[in-house]
This record gives sequence, C-alpha cells and structure tokens, in this order.
Amino acid sequence: MPDLTVTNVRPFNGTATDIHIRDGIVVDAPGANATVVDGLGAIALPAFVDAHMHLDKTLWGLPWRAHSAGKRLDEKIANERAARQELGADVEIQAARLIDQAIKNGTAAIRSHVDIDPDIGLANVESLLRVKSAYADVVDIQLVAFPQTGLVSRPGTSDLMHAAIEMGVDLVGGIDPQAIDGDADAHVRTIFDLAERTGAGIDIHHHEEGDAGADTLDLILDAVEAYAMQGCVTLSHAFCIGMVSEARMQSILDRIATLDVAIITTAPGYKAFPPVQAMREREIRVASGSDGVRDVWTPFGNADMLERAMLLAYRSNFRRDDEIEMVLDICTYGGGEVMDLEDHGPFPGQRADIVLIEAENAAEAVVNRPSGRRLIKNGALIG
Amino acid sequence: MPDLTVTNVRPFNGTATDIHIRDGIVVDAPGANATVVDGLGAIALPAFVDAHMHLDKTLWGLPWRAHSAGKRLDEKIANERAARQELGADVEIQAARLIDQAIKNGTAAIRSHVDIDPDIGLANVESLLRVKSAYADVVDIQLVAFPQTGLVSRPGTSDLMHAAIEMGVDLVGGIDPQAIDGDADAHVRTIFDLAERTGAGIDIHHHEEGDAGADTLDLILDAVEAYAMQGCVTLSHAFCIGMVSEARMQSILDRIATLDVAIITTAPGYKAFPPVQAMREREIRVASGSDGVRDVWTPFGNADMLERAMLLAYRSNFRRDDEIEMVLDICTYGGGEVMDLEDHGPFPGQRADIVLIEAENAAEAVVNRPSGRRLIKNGALIG
Repeated sequence: MPDLTVTNVRPFNGTATDIHIRDGIVVDAPGANATVVDGLGAIALPAFVDAHMHLDKTLWGLPWRAHSAGKRLDEKIANERAARQELGADVEIQAARLIDQAIKNGTAAIRSHVDIDPDIGLANVESLLRVKSAYADVVDIQLVAFPQTGLVSRPGTSDLMHAAIEMGVDLVGGIDPQAIDGDADAHVRTIFDLAERTGAGIDIHHHEEGDAGADTLDLILDAVEAYAMQGCVTLSHAFCIGMVSEARMQSILDRIATLDVAIITTAPGYKAFPPVQAMREREIRVASGSDGVRDVWTPFGNADMLERAMLLAYRSNFRRDDEIEMVLDICTYGGGEVMDLEDHGPFPGQRADIVLIEAENAAEAVVNRPSGRRLIKNGALIG
Repeated sequence: MPDLTVTNVRPFNGTATDIHIRDGIVVDAPGANATVVDGLGAIALPAFVDAHMHLDKTLWGLPWRAHSAGKRLDEKIANERAARQELGADVEIQAARLIDQAIKNGTAAIRSHVDIDPDIGLANVESLLRVKSAYADVVDIQLVAFPQTGLVSRPGTSDLMHAAIEMGVDLVGGIDPQAIDGDADAHVRTIFDLAERTGAGIDIHHHEEGDAGADTLDLILDAVEAYAMQGCVTLSHAFCIGMVSEARMQSILDRIATLDVAIITTAPGYKAFPPVQAMREREIRVASGSDGVRDVWTPFGNADMLERAMLLAYRSNFRRDDEIEMVLDICTYGGGEVMDLEDHGPFPGQRADIVLIEAENAAEAVVNRPSGRRLIKNGALIG
C-alpha cells in the first residue's frame, strides 16, 4: 500500500496541518512517493465505531414497508419472523447495503449481533461471516451470537451458539435472562460457560426495566466476578441503570467500574438509559451504536454515528463543547475500547482510521452533521 | 402573479398528479398561461410551520461560539445578556439568516417570541417588525411580546409590551408566572388584562415543573375561563403536564381541550413533555417548533421541522406510519391551526403553501429527512 499524505486538515479543533500515513499508521514525516489527498480544510476525527448493530435484520435500500409491530418486546420478536419471511430479504445483500451506508457516514468498525435460534440455525451466521470477510479491508466487523428468541427456553440454541463461535463469531450474546428466558440463573450460567469454554467475550442485550432489571444485572455482575471475566463483558442498553434509585444506580455503576464491564447505549428516545456523565467519571468504557436500522423493529435509523452523538447529547442535556466532545469520544474512541481495537485516529502513532468532515470544529460537526465526509481506513481513502 | 402548475408530484402518499395554483390557491384545472415547474416525482406536503422560535436570539451563520451557560434557567437568562453584548450580533441580520435557513428547509410560517424588558426596551421589537415586513411575501411571521427576564418583577415591562402590541406585535407573551416572577396571580392577571385591552392573543412560556408547575397552569386555565379567552391562548412547553400523576394529567388535558387552549411542544430531549397522542385524541390543537437555534441557550437546532418531527416521534416511541404522519401533521397543519392561518397544503381549495420533498412517502420523509426540498409559498416557487 502506498504512503498517504492528507494535506490541510485539522485534527479535532487543531490548526491546519498535513497528516502522513505509512503502513496504515499515522507518522510524523511524509513518505517519498506518498499519494497526496487535499483535505480541503476539513476536521479530522477518529473514524466512527458503531458498536451495536443488527446487520442481519435491516431492510435498508428496500421499498418502504409500513411498520407493523406492536409496542411490546415479545410482539416485536414474533412480528419479525413473520415479516422477514414475507419479505424474503437476502441477509448478505441487506447487510452489505447497510455497511455501505455506514462507511459513507464515516464508520470504520461495527459490532453486529447475529440471530441464532433453532429455526434460523446458523444461516445468518454464515451470511454475516461472508460479509465480514468481503469487507475486511474497509471495515472491522465483530459478530455476536445472539439468541433473539431465547436461550435456555429454546433447546438447541446454546449448541448452535457454540458452533457459531467455532465458525468465527467473536462474542457470546444474551438477552433479558429473566424476562425473555424466564430463568435468569440458567441463562447467565449458559452464556458464561460458553464464553469460558471458547475464550470468547460476552455482549448481553439487557432491556429488563427498573429494580427487577437491576436484580438480573446484579446476577450478571456476580457471574463476571465468579468467572473472572473482568474486562471481557459488555452490557447493551441496560435501561434499568437509569431507572432505579440514585443510591442503587451509584452502587451498580461503582461495581461496573470495578469489574471493568463495558456499557453500550443507543440513547433511546422514550425511556431512561445509563447516565453518560456518571459512567465517564468512573472511567467505565462506554460506546454507542445505531441498533436496528430501518428494519421490522423500527423504521428509523441511518447508520450515522454523528447523528447518534447528537441524540446522546440531546437526551443528556449536553450543550457545552466539552460535553459534546464527550459524546463524540464515545462514538469513536469509546467504541474502539469496547471492541478492543487498536487505538485509531489522526495523531502520530494511531492506526489511520480517520473521518474527514467539512465542519468548523468537533462540536459543530455534531450539531450540524454535514454530509460532506470522507473515510480513511487503514491509511487508504475509501470510496 | 402568474398561475403555476407543478407536474408529477404526489400529495402526501398519493399517486403522481399535477397541482394547479391560481391566485395563491390550489385549484382543479390548469391556467391557460401557467408557469410549469417539474415536480420530479417529489411528495407534496403542506409547508412546515415553526410555531416557536426566538429569531432575536440566534447566532446562526456566525463563527462557532463555545456554549457558556449553566444548566439552570436563571443562569441561562443572566448569561444571555452578557454574551449577546459581548458578541454585538445584529438582530435583523441574524433573524434574516435563520429565516433563510427555515425557508430552505420548507417552512412557510413562523411564530417568534421577541424579548422585551427595561434594558432592551423595544429595540428587538423594532428589528423583528422590520424583518417581518421584509419577508412578508415569503414567510408568515407572528411575533409574541416576550418578557424574558420577568414581568411584574421588572417594572415598566408591561407598558413596553403594550406599546409593542400597538406597534404590530401579534401576541402577549409570558414566562413562568411563579418561578421567574414570584407572583403567579399578578403575572397572569397582567398578561390577560393586556390581551383584553388590546385584543391580542396569548402565548405563555411555561417551564415550571411537576405539581407546582401544574398549580400555576391551573391558574392560567382559570384566567382563560374568567376572561373568556377560549381559543386565544397557547401554552408553550408545559413540561409539567408530562410530569404529574396520570390522573392529574388527564384532568388537565380535559380542561385544556374544553377551553380550546393550544399546546406547543418542542420535544425536549431530557425532560418530560405533554403526551402527544393523548392531546391529539382530545383534539387539542398541538404545534411544534425549533425553539432556540444556535444561540446562547443551546448550540443545537437547525430550523428544520422535518427533524423536529423525527425528534417528536423518537421521544414518543412512534414507529407506525400513522404515528409518524401524526407528528408531521403537528409540524404542518397543527402549526397552522395554532397560528390561525388559512388552511394550506397541496389539495384544491387550500392556500398553496407547499413543500416538495424527494421522498418515498410522508413517513419516509420524516425518517430520512432528505435535503432536496423546494418551498412553494402563496403559489410561488421560492428560491
């Protein structure tokens, strides 16, 4: 790969400079035969990390489909199967469409859940593994084996998840151990056993609300400790943290910090979520993601992590530049930490996963979310 | 003004048709010498109505300014005066910049508050009246005399507000009768007396929270009844409605419906707001607006009512097409009702204030918020 020099760019809010890249890493000095790209005065930020997607569910690029699901989670799960069969959407094509959209928005890394159950089997796993391989040069993809319809309540699912990990899926997933599966202990034990056997990390969807949700969360944290999986577990959503008493919230966050559990929040519009500022003060690893994009769960979403940063700020009453830069950090570096990626960004020594944005500064980019963006991945200009 | 025919457009989700316009009104048949504009298959919606702006506060188009205000309302008010003096922003130029942005986004009518107090006097009123006059052909502007820093607690303010109404300001404003002014009775009486003397309508900023806020709201509703101002009063924000017990909320909404009080909500990100569905079920007139855009209160905002519709849906957990169309209705027809404008839209008999959007259908326009939009105002293509 030839060296690359990007002229006239401003790392974050810095003054205009040239960025030199060799072997995919930002370096101090220009290469002799470097390809030169004019940065046109854009700001240069670390490329976005979308740490929670469902690449196998999206209907992106298909004709509009009127939303048909009820408000409850079980209605949404039941609706999905019926709707996707009716649509006959091709998982590989759909995933590719959404990844292309994410890249256009400046995303260089994605963690996606992939549905596994006795009906689907490993079909979606096979599809997303092929997509991951096809996109290996332009986007880092991590996959999570996701028991969408239940784990211990759906016999055969844990074996399929084991097989998925052996096929190359990166993490063991879970969902609402008590509310979906009806047996929190067995659900949690199954997940952690599988992680222990395979050496994979864990990323659990946790939608259970209020104190009951926090009780389940305590069980998960107990398991992190019992299995010594500090630093290897992510909780996605974890709405309950924003719903319990202040005292219980503080105590949960302290424990999450101690156990080095990561939190992914998508800044939901209509329910509480873990408090961003309080997590950051404890140096908890926090990432964000698009969640479902234009699928049978929601018609919303656009795979734009700059819009996600805006929503995180909007839902958190963040207005100061340092607060807005915090959500941007969550959508870039934070995602990198949760996905355990090599440090990336526009500064010397970092992997050259960089997004160029025509903006005045980092905060203004979040506020204005301009469409003029270019992604540099591993030191190569994409698209 | 020549007749106008817009070919190949789809009113809401309808099939492609031509829209014929004569004397600013949509008619059934084409004019003989009509100007013809190609609609390019766009959807045609009623133009947006931004029913809550602060045109005299915006810093739109100026270099980025780091946000400096504290979180509390009194801190924000104090900060504003200091910051605006330091900036020396020209109210007329700034208002014009923001109106241009609103037009670009498809907005054809704006209700803006204008600050009045003993320090500012009527300077901002004079500026915005000039702007209103300059933009008379392209956007309907209503102004509200707004006692930002207090009314009864700031002697001289009510006389200035009276003078403002006589100069052409349309409505009497108010703000937090108890929390800002410290005397809810006197504040409410002053506003309603002024409205009664001048024949102007009323639009009150009500940020007071919880049951205390609802107590003040009851006082305002008492005054609507006592002064027989049914149909003439708007409450902006009214967060407390979303904060009190379900029973009290229902009772307040019933009374608001009976008294034909309008509600404007901006779908705040970080606090409760009046429930959209429950208001619509009671046929309460509901509008939305941008509130502050890129000013010393908030760095956010872009005068895009399609984005506001998305935020209203996102905060209300609306996903079905009919729900998304409801928020779109609020951002178009709802604003027209609250501002008491002539019925507008793409159908015969309506005033031809129309926005053309390159979208698949109305719901998809809210979800995707494309930038390709064209505004037709009073039957003329703008810009």
